[in-house]
Amino acid sequence: MNKEDHFIQQFTNQTNLIGDDAAVIGEMVYSQDAFFENVHFKKDWMSLKQIAAKSMLVNISDAIAMNAIPQYALLTVAIPAYYSTSDMRKLANGFKKVAKDYNIKIIGGDTISNEKLDISVTIISKSENPIFRNGAKKDDLVCYTGDLGTCKKDLKKLFKGKKISSKSKFIKPKLKDNFFYEIAKYVNASLDISDGLFFELERLSKSSKVGFEFFDKISENIGTSGEEYEMLFTFPKKYLEKIMAASKKHNIALNIFAKVIEGKYETKYKNHHFNKRDNN
Amino acid sequence: MNKEDHFIQQFTNQTNLIGDDAAVIGEMVYSQDAFFENVHFKKDWMSLKQIAAKSMLVNISDAIAMNAIPQYALLTVAIPAYYSTSDMRKLANGFKKVAKDYNIKIIGGDTISNEKLDISVTIISKSENPIFRNGAKKDDLVCYTGDLGTCKKDLKKLFKGKKISSKSKFIKPKLKDNFFYEIAKYVNASLDISDGLFFELERLSKSSKVGFEFFDKISENIGTSGEEYEMLFTFPKKYLEKIMAASKKHNIALNIFAKVIEGKYETKYKNHHFNKRDNN
Repeated sequence: MNKEDHFIQQFTNQTNLIGDDAAVIGEMVYSQDAFFENVHFKKDWMSLKQIAAKSMLVNISDAIAMNAIPQYALLTVAIPAYYSTSDMRKLANGFKKVAKDYNIKIIGGDTISNEKLDISVTIISKSENPIFRNGAKKDDLVCYTGDLGTCKKDLKKLFKGKKISSKSKFIKPKLKDNFFYEIAKYVNASLDISDGLFFELERLSKSSKVGFEFFDKISENIGTSGEEYEMLFTFPKKYLEKIMAASKKHNIALNIFAKVIEGKYETKYKNHHFNKRDNN
Repeated sequence: MNKEDHFIQQFTNQTNLIGDDAAVIGEMVYSQDAFFENVHFKKDWMSLKQIAAKSMLVNISDAIAMNAIPQYALLTVAIPAYYSTSDMRKLANGFKKVAKDYNIKIIGGDTISNEKLDISVTIISKSENPIFRNGAKKDDLVCYTGDLGTCKKDLKKLFKGKKISSKSKFIKPKLKDNFFYEIAKYVNASLDISDGLFFELERLSKSSKVGFEFFDKISENIGTSGEEYEMLFTFPKKYLEKIMAASKKHNIALNIFAKVIEGKYETKYKNHHFNKRDNN
């Protein structure tokens, strides 16, 4: 167990509430995620507006994975002292754009002077029917949305000092909210792919106490690409047609790659955020 | 207007919800505050357990100032890579101790590897009768709890490399929760003293659009001592006896130092967290 897991474990013993993408209290769903300079991004990789936007999108992704509709946000923003008023406006515009796109009200938070730009976002969402990681059932089909692998490639380019397209999912995650809310009633378990497919599958295996039978070999490039923010979910086979119809309607690629079996899945590939590779 | 106020202003225009110690949505009250190394504390000033505890207490203080009972916490903890498992346990113990003392469930959050220890806490509270900063009425009495000034003195000692008592309010804020919840029904406006009395009075003046007539001169040492986490509040004179009785019952010193008048109060002393003095 790594140090961070050990740290989280201390609280899990206490509450049993930690471990999903977000915490559910009644109809409210709470997610809090850090988005720190030199941990989650480097400042020459993205504009300030893109950084602010992504810090919110990765939290909204957690809410979507729980079938929750984001409503409010709290922002803690630690800002380098040398930032100009124009820099601050660019940051604010990034937050406001995403808030507008997702109909989220920014209700509070904190701003401080710091050595680097460190953002912590809390998203407060509502769900009448939250989906957890522990609901996968034997014989469920397992699938993910979109294409995996491009974020890993783009990250490699960035580390080599190359430019990537401003349309890259690494810069602007393409959330699948409308599609996922529509099919949520058919889904047994879901999470978003932030740390790479293989690692998310291990999380799913642990939570649901299941294994997976893969239909095809999944390449390392696909399985270890983090920061994708695609949806990973399982559903009973009888809903296949309905889910395919919804994916067609919303123009979402769907990759049905395994079925749920008894057993356990473990991967040797762990923690595919670049920060974990860099710092541990 | 400083840069941080300008940043906050961007959102205030949008929502009208920012500006109190916490945001109120229905019966729920949300506060989020950062507690960052080299911004709010230096690591040789306090133990890891004390740091974790204070990061929660300053947020709980916001909830109390709104007459809200804390229920849940989300913690984002950015941890230096060199911390040992024992260090992590000490940190966790600080969070858990305060959570236990205040009957708060830690429900989620995020942990990441970082260059320094940066904590961001969201406290989710409940209040049937939240108190805002904008409720002060003409002829209200204005008072604060406890003694002010010791935190400024202790901070000076710390900057000189001297030790301070582990009982210092700078290390462990002494919140006045039981007293304040009991008298809340008599209170028109309240906030906690995090940035110094003079600066909080300016905030109160701006929110309530009132001025103050002081009964006595307040010394600079008292008026500019930040990080005190005492309560500042106003109430109609007719409740004086009830509030005095409660202060006696809870053994809380009460300083009634001004009355609310028409007008405006401004101070030349701003931002008395040490971070603001250091970094701006």
